[in-house]
Amino acid sequence: MKKHNFSAGPCILPAEVFQQASEAVLDFNNSGLSILEISHRSKDFVAVIEEARNLALELLQLDNNKYTALFLHGGASMQFLMTPHNLLEKKAAYLNTGTWASKAIKEAKLFGEVIEVASSEDKNFNYIPKNFEIPTGIDYFHCTSNNTIYGTQLKSFPKSNAPLVCDMSSDIFSRDIDYSQFDLIYAGAQKNIGPAGTTLVIINKAILGKVSRKIPSILDYKSHIEKESMFNTPSVFAIYTSLLNLRWLKKQGGVSALAKINKHKAELLYAELDRNPLFTPYANKEDRSLMNITFNLANPELSHTFDALWQQAGINALNGHRSLGGYRASIYNALTVESVQLLTEVMQELENKA
Amino acid sequence: MKKHNFSAGPCILPAEVFQQASEAVLDFNNSGLSILEISHRSKDFVAVIEEARNLALELLQLDNNKYTALFLHGGASMQFLMTPHNLLEKKAAYLNTGTWASKAIKEAKLFGEVIEVASSEDKNFNYIPKNFEIPTGIDYFHCTSNNTIYGTQLKSFPKSNAPLVCDMSSDIFSRDIDYSQFDLIYAGAQKNIGPAGTTLVIINKAILGKVSRKIPSILDYKSHIEKESMFNTPSVFAIYTSLLNLRWLKKQGGVSALAKINKHKAELLYAELDRNPLFTPYANKEDRSLMNITFNLANPELSHTFDALWQQAGINALNGHRSLGGYRASIYNALTVESVQLLTEVMQELENKA
Repeated sequence: MKKHNFSAGPCILPAEVFQQASEAVLDFNNSGLSILEISHRSKDFVAVIEEARNLALELLQLDNNKYTALFLHGGASMQFLMTPHNLLEKKAAYLNTGTWASKAIKEAKLFGEVIEVASSEDKNFNYIPKNFEIPTGIDYFHCTSNNTIYGTQLKSFPKSNAPLVCDMSSDIFSRDIDYSQFDLIYAGAQKNIGPAGTTLVIINKAILGKVSRKIPSILDYKSHIEKESMFNTPSVFAIYTSLLNLRWLKKQGGVSALAKINKHKAELLYAELDRNPLFTPYANKEDRSLMNITFNLANPELSHTFDALWQQAGINALNGHRSLGGYRASIYNALTVESVQLLTEVMQELENKA
Repeated sequence: MKKHNFSAGPCILPAEVFQQASEAVLDFNNSGLSILEISHRSKDFVAVIEEARNLALELLQLDNNKYTALFLHGGASMQFLMTPHNLLEKKAAYLNTGTWASKAIKEAKLFGEVIEVASSEDKNFNYIPKNFEIPTGIDYFHCTSNNTIYGTQLKSFPKSNAPLVCDMSSDIFSRDIDYSQFDLIYAGAQKNIGPAGTTLVIINKAILGKVSRKIPSILDYKSHIEKESMFNTPSVFAIYTSLLNLRWLKKQGGVSALAKINKHKAELLYAELDRNPLFTPYANKEDRSLMNITFNLANPELSHTFDALWQQAGINALNGHRSLGGYRASIYNALTVESVQLLTEVMQELENKA
């Protein structure tokens, strides 16, 4: 039975990427060797990481003289630490839009003054604060473009003279925005990039080298740039699979092409949520995420019936994050329109039954 | 043509591990889902990481009340930083036996006084220093059990009242030693554990909580212990493949069984190196590594002939580390006796030709 995987991450990747990755575990590039047993310094893998780094910049239409792309260890959580370690000399400003933003703020406070410019915690992060002011004299401004847990998304980004840093873990490569407005973008791979185990970091090199503290080598962006993302043994398989996925994305027509499909998928699902009286969407309408669609049952007693219905339909991982409950449909790049249609049909079936 | 992979890491794993890992990329546990698209919080993956953590301790015969095993991000290089961050209050002692030990020392110096108890740098790390004294009043003693680049290995470990910390990246699970003499063991997975992208860290919990500094969450061993190695999204595929490999190791009879085979393989190869006048082993005889066997050609002009011979035989990655040159045969757990025999035959063929 076909599975429709709405997991929030690690998440669905294109079937052809799974196929190619599986084959490479047995035989990579017709070398007679597994992708798991080759040296990261081998000519073939150096070509992989170089292509992946260049393709990431190309797909985001970023100038590869100004920006550099790195595949690092540790997830976005490591970037919560590396960002202030490398950039925070005196004070930084953060926008608090949810759990991950709060965690980023917590780590930054170890390094300097952190100004929380606004927070949506008063309504359990179901909206994006607007009309906040970004103070002057800050080392950088940090925001989270999409809040995976709550299903909210920044539709535009504030202007500031300070470097703009963005955690894009759950919506990078999914929408058509001007990525060159950012000076530092980071994203755990396990949504629209590839499998868990590597993190894409994109840096405007000009913002580095301005803090006075000593930075441990492995936390220093400059070490990684100097070593061309090979400061230490990288996550070979995760990076190779990310490359397969970025190649797939390019073949589909790039970010703009996927952005259109993603918008269509989200509209289908929100339309059903708005129409069907059994469901209540969680996020504030104008701040709705196009990647993670959060909702509740108007009558929680229907949960057993609903859960049975979607599970019988082959739908996987529709439960909300354990901290929020309810439901969450994550509709990343590789999830098809058909899967979303199926979910709306299940919702209609529940309505017919109830 | 069969490949004989002597790569120093990432390195050969058992063929059945490659097969199982490849299948799981298409369908994990008959779930209809790829191992790459399941949530790390799913019941099936929680079972994987728990089994891997327990099996690691079991195979090393470590008490799982005293010790905890974690699969972390970042490689051994991240542990060069995490060790002093978590343990170094005033001073620590380090043994310098090569490149990786030197890098560990460099990072520790950011956190306190580092006493280098001995170094073999005077002879380009071709031996292991002995009869050094470990000072009193230190927070811990750090050593590198096996020096992948130079092909040397500690045959015994010093006694000390201070916690004993060991980078075992290239020989964990390969030899029969008392692993309970250590308080902290770390090892990048990409030799005898699994693919690149995760790091095994084993900690005697009693040594933690003794430094006064604030430790960033993701660098704090306690955060990872508290979250049962799921502080953030772990490297799902690398951990699953590590589990497959640890299961294989158990099926072979565990560490003791492999240790015997490893000794036999090393003896075969060193015997040929000692016998064959065309080759000169690099490491001091009594300090020879059983995992990484380094050597040179007595007459470097034969390198073209030798390189052609081993490449024609299907041997892969016999070149020494780029910093040392020469040759290196890495004979990790999954490399068979037959592959080592083949290499000795190639060496004899060179002798017959020369």
